[in-house]
Amino acid sequence: MASSLFFTHSHCYSSSTSLVFRLHRQLGVAPTSLRLSSSHVANVAAMAMDSSAKVIDGKAVAKQIRDEITAEVSRMREATGVIPGLAVILVGDRKDSATYVRNKKKACESVGINSLEANLPEDSTEEEVLNYISGYNDDPSVHGILVQLPLPSHMNEQNILNAVRIEKDVDGFHPLNIGRLAMRGRDPLFVPCTPKGCIELLHRYNISIKGKRAVVIGRSNIVGMPAALLLQREDATVSIVHSRTSNPEEIIRQADIIISAVGKANMVRGSWIKPGAVIIDVGINPVDDPNSPRGYKLVGDVFYEEAIQVASAVTPVPGGVGPMTIAMLLQNTLISAKRVHNFE
Amino acid sequence: MASSLFFTHSHCYSSSTSLVFRLHRQLGVAPTSLRLSSSHVANVAAMAMDSSAKVIDGKAVAKQIRDEITAEVSRMREATGVIPGLAVILVGDRKDSATYVRNKKKACESVGINSLEANLPEDSTEEEVLNYISGYNDDPSVHGILVQLPLPSHMNEQNILNAVRIEKDVDGFHPLNIGRLAMRGRDPLFVPCTPKGCIELLHRYNISIKGKRAVVIGRSNIVGMPAALLLQREDATVSIVHSRTSNPEEIIRQADIIISAVGKANMVRGSWIKPGAVIIDVGINPVDDPNSPRGYKLVGDVFYEEAIQVASAVTPVPGGVGPMTIAMLLQNTLISAKRVHNFE
Repeated sequence: MASSLFFTHSHCYSSSTSLVFRLHRQLGVAPTSLRLSSSHVANVAAMAMDSSAKVIDGKAVAKQIRDEITAEVSRMREATGVIPGLAVILVGDRKDSATYVRNKKKACESVGINSLEANLPEDSTEEEVLNYISGYNDDPSVHGILVQLPLPSHMNEQNILNAVRIEKDVDGFHPLNIGRLAMRGRDPLFVPCTPKGCIELLHRYNISIKGKRAVVIGRSNIVGMPAALLLQREDATVSIVHSRTSNPEEIIRQADIIISAVGKANMVRGSWIKPGAVIIDVGINPVDDPNSPRGYKLVGDVFYEEAIQVASAVTPVPGGVGPMTIAMLLQNTLISAKRVHNFE
Repeated sequence: MASSLFFTHSHCYSSSTSLVFRLHRQLGVAPTSLRLSSSHVANVAAMAMDSSAKVIDGKAVAKQIRDEITAEVSRMREATGVIPGLAVILVGDRKDSATYVRNKKKACESVGINSLEANLPEDSTEEEVLNYISGYNDDPSVHGILVQLPLPSHMNEQNILNAVRIEKDVDGFHPLNIGRLAMRGRDPLFVPCTPKGCIELLHRYNISIKGKRAVVIGRSNIVGMPAALLLQREDATVSIVHSRTSNPEEIIRQADIIISAVGKANMVRGSWIKPGAVIIDVGINPVDDPNSPRGYKLVGDVFYEEAIQVASAVTPVPGGVGPMTIAMLLQNTLISAKRVHNFE
């Protein structure tokens, strides 16, 4: 029974090392074979409300955002001579981490953002990593600092992440940022990339949030919790469903907007969805697929084929939230550079 | 119609100057004419689950907590020679503010905590206030600093509150504290007093939170939002209802635990309450009462006489959450002193 299996992997997002999150980041820079104009995105938005086409095209939106960032980076460079810079610190030689760092580098290059990279050996000391962070903290050409996770197990992740200057914390995970996100009348310097990408998709598709019932599935620091805070800032009535929730289906069924970030393949069934709901599916879960040359395929937390019959709009997996995460990282880096140089 | 009036005063808690909050703080130190032993509290707890006695006695619990604090303060003083100290800064000559400060002073004295007080004239500069904060920040005999709100309008409240060292922020309103409260795997240095008092009442009455549906009414920085974060930390499934919620009654009716902090007299009717729910009523609202010598009486957000027929336990107003707030302030001051002196 689906409900008895519920949330077996609910804590995937608690750790930045989870496969789900790593895949997510990786997919964030999947090559956009589809080149859509902004008018096309608008058409997709209009179509999303139509029963015949409910797909929220994250690839197209991410492409549009990268184009906007490219234009802004160029405008800023021309006006001020400043080029936004993102520094990524990679410790060790995990192949997957190296891939994500390479993808971030490529994404930066594609929009004209400088990318700096520090590759430290696996047996580096915490102090050596802190020295690099300190150097980037003081380097005026660096506007964002990202420490690629996971770090080797002999390092204290919290110490290292806390060392990043809040003005350069483009991941938005610093507790001071999260606190400001939670508080009315305060504004965070940066909003975490994946939840920001979820809300941006709603905005770009003109899906109204104010006064809507929203249910966030999963309460990770990286996605679920900040997504709930963002929805609340936009005046949704928010409920968070998690591994200890006794009647998740019942609550999810009340939602006008569902954001699922739990990392459990095809967990949310069609019968859990209120007709006309909008679904943002953050999960990217590998399932066996003998027909694929890789032997697996990727699916979301939401049973897509069922959801598309009931919802008014759904993000596909891949190609939904995935491509938005890196677009938001680039945007945060640009925001940081603009802020420090008072460039509007 | 009740629902059409809903949340007229919903933002009272957004400002620390609200009458509701001020009254609340004032009542936090109402003289406890009732002196109950801890066994009495346990009896009340048992009775609360009985249909004949559903009252959550905040006065008795607060008294018990103050007794515990008195014992701890004494134990600490004997073992280390250190006396916990709370500094309160009062700017201007508002009568109500002067009363709350006096009450806090009295409460400190009653448990053996040192209280320091700075009274600055209304026309002080922001810099003068900041100088006092800086002095208390550096004073090792001060373990908690509280700036009495509201400040005169020519001062920037956020600047002043941000100047309090986070290690002495016994109000728990610093965004870094709120961020840590929101994040899994992080712990705030201090939990804001009123929401902490709400949860403490549930604990002392052995009301289980884990897996329960909880609805928080109101999303203020001072009560609603941190109360929701606290409930979530204890594994409740939390929804926040606010002024933009289109169907509050429907959502509230699903709650096993209701925390109301909205400042609207008798708003939550009996028909909004699920039979057997537990209600923590933070609202303290004055309503006309010709029979009272003061011309008014105080009531909660919840229509008490109706609620008591449906709920399994309800906090009265006054005498529910009110007395808990200052008890929690004293507790936070003790926690701070213990932490800085590594006293367990």
